[in-house]
Amino acid sequence: MTTVGFIGLGIMGGPMAVNLVKAGYDVLGYDVTPARTELLVEAGGRAAVGIAEAVQKADVVVTMVRDSADVEAVALGDHGILANSRPGQLYIDTSSISPTTSRDVAEAAKPLGVRVLDAPVSGGEPGAIEGNLSIMVGGEADDFEAARPVLEVVGATVVHVGPHGAGQTVKAANQLIVAGTIELVAEAIVFLEAYGVDTEAAIRVLAGGLAGNRILDRKAAGMLARRFEPGFRIDLHHKDMGIVTSAAREAGVVIPLGSAVAQLIASLKAQGDGGLDHSALLKLVEQLSGRVSR
Amino acid sequence: MTTVGFIGLGIMGGPMAVNLVKAGYDVLGYDVTPARTELLVEAGGRAAVGIAEAVQKADVVVTMVRDSADVEAVALGDHGILANSRPGQLYIDTSSISPTTSRDVAEAAKPLGVRVLDAPVSGGEPGAIEGNLSIMVGGEADDFEAARPVLEVVGATVVHVGPHGAGQTVKAANQLIVAGTIELVAEAIVFLEAYGVDTEAAIRVLAGGLAGNRILDRKAAGMLARRFEPGFRIDLHHKDMGIVTSAAREAGVVIPLGSAVAQLIASLKAQGDGGLDHSALLKLVEQLSGRVSR
Repeated sequence: MTTVGFIGLGIMGGPMAVNLVKAGYDVLGYDVTPARTELLVEAGGRAAVGIAEAVQKADVVVTMVRDSADVEAVALGDHGILANSRPGQLYIDTSSISPTTSRDVAEAAKPLGVRVLDAPVSGGEPGAIEGNLSIMVGGEADDFEAARPVLEVVGATVVHVGPHGAGQTVKAANQLIVAGTIELVAEAIVFLEAYGVDTEAAIRVLAGGLAGNRILDRKAAGMLARRFEPGFRIDLHHKDMGIVTSAAREAGVVIPLGSAVAQLIASLKAQGDGGLDHSALLKLVEQLSGRVSR
Repeated sequence: MTTVGFIGLGIMGGPMAVNLVKAGYDVLGYDVTPARTELLVEAGGRAAVGIAEAVQKADVVVTMVRDSADVEAVALGDHGILANSRPGQLYIDTSSISPTTSRDVAEAAKPLGVRVLDAPVSGGEPGAIEGNLSIMVGGEADDFEAARPVLEVVGATVVHVGPHGAGQTVKAANQLIVAGTIELVAEAIVFLEAYGVDTEAAIRVLAGGLAGNRILDRKAAGMLARRFEPGFRIDLHHKDMGIVTSAAREAGVVIPLGSAVAQLIASLKAQGDGGLDHSALLKLVEQLSGRVSR
């Protein structure tokens, strides 16, 4: 029986760990907030007292934490994962962080013989609960094959996309396209409303042609109704746009629309809307167009 | 038998007129370039000697011309459609033009009792040939119902979206979203390539999640291969972005990404790439990122 040490049992990590238990894995979970292990234990998993235990007793270590700084602390810290690991151990980081940090962790793990993969996910809380996340994996091909059984428990689409950091790069590209598409749909909606167009009929036509996208399919109705409860929060998308713009800058890649939408998301956060769904970009287009007082 | 006067038999209008013949309509076609009536006549239609004949002998008049200036000339000119029309006649303009021009034509037609619809299409040459265009219709609801049989011959999705000009507004929103999405995908591709990511695998994952869109489905493969033969030319998308940005400005709607991508398309045209497919926005992202010499 494979033991998985699972570190970070929040909104995403919690249900992922539970799904691993349901699939027959022995899951030893740890979170800085101890209460978060409760659901895992109820489901038949075990609670570890610290990172050291979760790593030392595990065959595979999985992390799902908030940002690059958290991964650095948890993986590279004095009492962290690598300090407690053994050669041949598999460490899968499913957090969404900077590709540079993912490469730094892989670099530090190499002399220890620890096999690292960056495996950020998309699909949000519903995807984590239903076990149908999309997972973009960077690292060595044979390590990917070794990790695949674990990843296929929590994800429906699990794809190896390149070397260390490549998973994060694809996740960053994903967040760039999602943010940009929400903004394009928001601009279209405000434009159509200004001309008295039947927006529901319009969205139906737009969704059926070359303009068709998942935001029109899944979010436009909520945008028309001004329902902005999250979903995926502006705060988190702001964090991700920081990763995208920094990573593009480091690579010398110029992303005019990506940068512009990063600024628009930053403005929503600065104006106190960080807790709203990212589709609230519509609110900002209305504000900029003088169509609502805030 | 209903006679359709069809004015403008180019890449789009030609096959649309032929489809009307095939569906049993008596089609009387006219184009400033007489050779363009040949395909229609071969298919069983008739060639008119001028606009006057195409309008006077028709029950329904359809136009498919290049831009707002062409519609103004053809519809409002001294020897144009309205000058030759009779009360109760239906005039459907399928050109993609400014919503303001569409409203001007409707305004001029009203005292004459001519029933005008703006009905721009999307789906390109293949959609025109296969008769499965998407058609966004602005105008009176009962005129839309009267025009529906004709429109459903050339289009698979035919939707009434609001008052005069609304069809053009939806088409403009369509072109905004399409241009912006191509640019977002282009930025993502250059970014992923810079990091050595397996782009084909990456596109597969991106297409499966919230970032999914028709550009990833239909155009990303050609973009990866740097195949930019049109398809839909930069020159035409530049014309359409002029309509979008002017119409947004007239309505006081601020479209940050729409405006930015309009500038990027303008730059491609200015640099001599107007004849390439709009997916050539990728070339500009590469140029801006110093990844190709031009």
